[in-house]
Amino acid sequence: MSLLVVGSMAFDSIKSPFGEVERVVGGSATYFSLAASYLAPVRLVSVVGRDFPKETIDMLRTRGIDLRGLKIAEGDTFHWKGYYEYDLNIAHTVKTELNVFQDFAPVLPDAYRETPYVFLGNIDPRLQLDILAQIRSPKLVALDTMNFWIEKSPGPLREVIRNVDIVVINEAEIRELTGEFNLVRAARKVMTMGPDRVVVKRGEYGVLHLSDGEIFAAPAYPLETIFDPTGAGDSFAGGFMGYLASRDGAAPTEMDYRLATMYGSAIASFTVEAFSTERLEGLTRDDIATRLEAFLALTRFTV
Amino acid sequence: MSLLVVGSMAFDSIKSPFGEVERVVGGSATYFSLAASYLAPVRLVSVVGRDFPKETIDMLRTRGIDLRGLKIAEGDTFHWKGYYEYDLNIAHTVKTELNVFQDFAPVLPDAYRETPYVFLGNIDPRLQLDILAQIRSPKLVALDTMNFWIEKSPGPLREVIRNVDIVVINEAEIRELTGEFNLVRAARKVMTMGPDRVVVKRGEYGVLHLSDGEIFAAPAYPLETIFDPTGAGDSFAGGFMGYLASRDGAAPTEMDYRLATMYGSAIASFTVEAFSTERLEGLTRDDIATRLEAFLALTRFTV
Repeated sequence: MSLLVVGSMAFDSIKSPFGEVERVVGGSATYFSLAASYLAPVRLVSVVGRDFPKETIDMLRTRGIDLRGLKIAEGDTFHWKGYYEYDLNIAHTVKTELNVFQDFAPVLPDAYRETPYVFLGNIDPRLQLDILAQIRSPKLVALDTMNFWIEKSPGPLREVIRNVDIVVINEAEIRELTGEFNLVRAARKVMTMGPDRVVVKRGEYGVLHLSDGEIFAAPAYPLETIFDPTGAGDSFAGGFMGYLASRDGAAPTEMDYRLATMYGSAIASFTVEAFSTERLEGLTRDDIATRLEAFLALTRFTV
Repeated sequence: MSLLVVGSMAFDSIKSPFGEVERVVGGSATYFSLAASYLAPVRLVSVVGRDFPKETIDMLRTRGIDLRGLKIAEGDTFHWKGYYEYDLNIAHTVKTELNVFQDFAPVLPDAYRETPYVFLGNIDPRLQLDILAQIRSPKLVALDTMNFWIEKSPGPLREVIRNVDIVVINEAEIRELTGEFNLVRAARKVMTMGPDRVVVKRGEYGVLHLSDGEIFAAPAYPLETIFDPTGAGDSFAGGFMGYLASRDGAAPTEMDYRLATMYGSAIASFTVEAFSTERLEGLTRDDIATRLEAFLALTRFTV
C-alpha cells in the first residue's frame, strides 16, 4: 500500500573526522523516500529550489517514487551545514538556511489524499497538522520531530502528537519533550499524549521500540567504518514505515512492528557507510535481506 | 567448577538523583562474588579493614562464597565516594581512599591455586599479574581494568592483557586503551594484544561481545527505575564468568558465551534496582530465569 512522506529535501555541508563534503544532497524526505522505496510505493511531499540537481530528481523517479507532491520553487534549496566529532551520535549545527522551505505550504495532489500510510518528517508541527488534515482516514500515521520544534512550537507539536499513532524520535529529544530522563517513563508519557507506540532512536546504540506492555530493543549494526551518520534516522524511519506499508493492510502485530524496526535498522546501517545518499541509491533487496540475517546473527541467543 | 575473583571490597558513598547513601558496602569483588554465587562455587581474594561489617562477611559465607582468600587487615576499608547525575552511565569520583588496599599483596591459599576459572577484577595490573602467576594452568582468565591503570600503569597492563583470554571493559575505557573510537576496531586491536574475546560494557546500552569473526549485541534491560548503577559492571562480570564456570568444563561455544553474556546482563539488571548489594543478596534462581526470559522477549524477532 502507498506511503506518503512529507519532509525536507536539502543540501548538506558536513565535516566529520572521516572527511568533508560541500552541498551534497540530503534532507529527511530524500533519505526516507529512498529507504522506503525498496519496500513500498512512496509519495513524496517536499520543496526544492531551482538549484536542486535534476539528476537527483531523476534518480528518485527511477526508484519509483511519486514526485507529484514535489514543488520546485523559485529560490535556493534548504541548506544545512554541520559537523560531527568522534562521537557520531551528536550532530553539531553550524548553519541552517531555510530558503524555499521558509514559505512551504504544501497542498496535496488529489491522488495523495487517500494514502493509507503517512510519515510526517521533522518539519514545523503546524505544517504536519496541515498535511494531516488533507488526508482522508489514514490507516497509520507516524511523526518525527526535533529539539527546535519542542522549544519553539510546543503547542502545535502536542496537537499533532495527539493525532498520530507512532512517534519516532531521538533519545535526547524524547527526554526534552517529556522532562523524563528514563526512557521507559518518557515513552509512557508520550503514550499518554495519544500515540500507541514510541520508537526511540539511539544512534549507534540502536532503537528502543515501546508500546503498552511490550518493549523491543534492536541494536544498531556494529560497523567498522561509519562514514557519515547524516540521514540514518530518516532512513530508519523509511525502512520501518516502508515495511509496514508493504504488508497486505491487516493491522500489524507486535512481531510485524519488530520486523519493521529491523528493516529500518538494516537500511539505516547502509546509509552511514557513505556520505549523502550514495550507498542508499544502489541497494538491492538481496543486500537488505543479507543485512537482516546479519542482525539475526548479531542478536540470537538461546536460554 | 570453581571461579576465583580478586578485586576490591569497599565502602561506597554515593549521591544520585534518586538518593544518597553513606558508606554502604560495595567493591568489585563483593558484587562479582555475589552475582557469581548463584551459578558456581566462588573463591574470593580481597582485603578489608577491621571496620568492615561482620554481617556482610557472614552474608557472603552464607551464599557459599569461599573466604579463605579474604584478609582482614589492621586499618580502614577502601572507601569510594562519588556521584551520578541524570546520565547514570558516568560515575564521577569525588574521593578514593585506598586504606588497607594500599599494601595489598595477596598470597593465594594453597587450595586456590588449582582454580580453573579466574577473574582479575579492576585492580593494579601488577597485582593482577602477581595473582595470575600463583595459579597453575587456569582454563579461562578474564580481566577488567579502568582509565586509572590505563594511564598510570600501561606497561604492566599490557603484560597482563597479553596473558588473559577475555577482556571485560567499559566503552570509554577500551577507546582510551586502544586510541580507537570505533568499538569494532578497538576490540580487534585488543585481540591483537593476546585475548580471544572482548566484552565491551556500555551501561544502559548493554554489552557488545566480540571475538574473531563473531559479534553479539546484548541490550541492557530497560528498567523504569534505575536506582544506582554502582556495581552493575562487576555483577555483569560475575554472572558472565559464573555461567561459564557452571558448565561441565568443555570449551565454551559461541552460544555458551552468548548465554553467559545474558546471565551477566540479567543479574546486573537486578543490581541497579537498589543501592549497594541489597537487591543482589536476596535473588533466587527463579528470579534470574524469569529475567532471562524477559531478555529473550525483549530481543526476539523473526525474519
